[in-house]
Amino acid sequence: MPDASTTVRELRDRVVAFVHERDWEKYHNPKDIAISMSVEAAELLELFQWRSDSQVDLDDSETREAIEDELADVFVYCLSLANAIDCDLSDVTLRKLAKNERKYPADEWRGRAR
Amino acid sequence: MPDASTTVRELRDRVVAFVHERDWEKYHNPKDIAISMSVEAAELLELFQWRSDSQVDLDDSETREAIEDELADVFVYCLSLANAIDCDLSDVTLRKLAKNERKYPADEWRGRAR
Amino acid sequence: MPDASTTVRELRDRVVAFVHERDWEKYHNPKDIAISMSVEAAELLELFQWRSDSQVDLDDSETREAIEDELADVFVYCLSLANAIDCDLSDVTLRKLAKNERKYPADEWRGRAR
Amino acid sequence: MPDASTTVRELRDRVVAFVHERDWEKYHNPKDIAISMSVEAAELLELFQWRSDSQVDLDDSETREAIEDELADVFVYCLSLANAIDCDLSDVTLRKLAKNERKYPADEWRGRAR
Repeated sequence: MPDASTTVRELRDRVVAFVHERDWEKYHNPKDIAISMSVEAAELLELFQWRSDSQVDLDDSETREAIEDELADVFVYCLSLANAIDCDLSDVTLRKLAKNERKYPADEWRGRAR
Repeated sequence: MPDASTTVRELRDRVVAFVHERDWEKYHNPKDIAISMSVEAAELLELFQWRSDSQVDLDDSETREAIEDELADVFVYCLSLANAIDCDLSDVTLRKLAKNERKYPADEWRGRAR
Repeated sequence: MPDASTTVRELRDRVVAFVHERDWEKYHNPKDIAISMSVEAAELLELFQWRSDSQVDLDDSETREAIEDELADVFVYCLSLANAIDCDLSDVTLRKLAKNERKYPADEWRGRAR
Repeated sequence: MPDASTTVRELRDRVVAFVHERDWEKYHNPKDIAISMSVEAAELLELFQWRSDSQVDLDDSETREAIEDELADVFVYCLSLANAIDCDLSDVTLRKLAKNERKYPADEWRGRAR
């Protein structure tokens, strides 16, 4: 199921099924999902702790898989939160990108850090 | 662009364009994206600070939009990291869900917190 | 060495010694210490994941020690960062509390969440 | 009140007074303090976002004060959590440093990142 043909809805449905099979909906309130998202984002960050970016070797398959796994964990909690609060993730993403475009006009911010 | 018809690739391409128009690729190394993901996850979490889950009113449009915006920020950094390390997000998500299924067999974990 | 008689300086010196014995000063730049502080704060938070506050039993000695250990980790990175940027932690703490007092006047905020 | 003469207990008492004057003890349960600690650690981290460590100028007084303020916020939540769970912070810090010494023997780890 590559990105080119997989819809956000299909991925959300996989997460719905995973949670439902375990009867975990009762834990999946927005506050606790937000906690989990922070926890998983920190586990991703930990893989870069005490290393310069160039010291993290993405050509090493073990390192790459560890990073991809933590990225997937954060991503799954994004899908979970969208499920829990019933919002359309594509819609809110495009709405936020449009806000960011107004906040950081390309002509003004080109080549400068936020 | 609702979730039902939007592919992950289409969303990734929007983020590619946003970053490219600002010439921000040079900042988007994996370590700094991981930092940003943690920062945005914490901004989402802040909306639940000092409140019980039930005190966060999702029917209030301002509250809802604030949560959706912070969710979108984390989601965008997931797409950014996938772009930066060139991985297929759908593939790694399904691979991680399969690992989670082995780690938390439904029959054993039904109704119990991790 | 209980809190009543231990100065902040004494604790900072312990951390200086720990880092020096391992020749870790070269890693202890402010950015990487800030990353570590976030990572450790998330490990503390993880102990409360999927549980209501009342479900975390502080009378259970194993639970208590786990929480105390993660608290200590964050605390040690606070001491480390003060060492790395050479600031007086007591001074900056009192200065920040004074700012917070002006931001949240007691008469106005009594009993209300921030 | 410099670090050389300020005990941990004195700083804890300042935080006790600050919280008490606002009747905020009811919010200060361990789970919500842990959330706040993560949120403040991320605000500190945000000051290093998209910058190399050397691009963060500690000689600039505004930058320095911003970093010190966020450090103080995390530190205050460490003191708050110690107050809320009633543990001796100096004791648990030294206990944790002793564990770290066993985990990372100086002879074995000298000059190597964790």
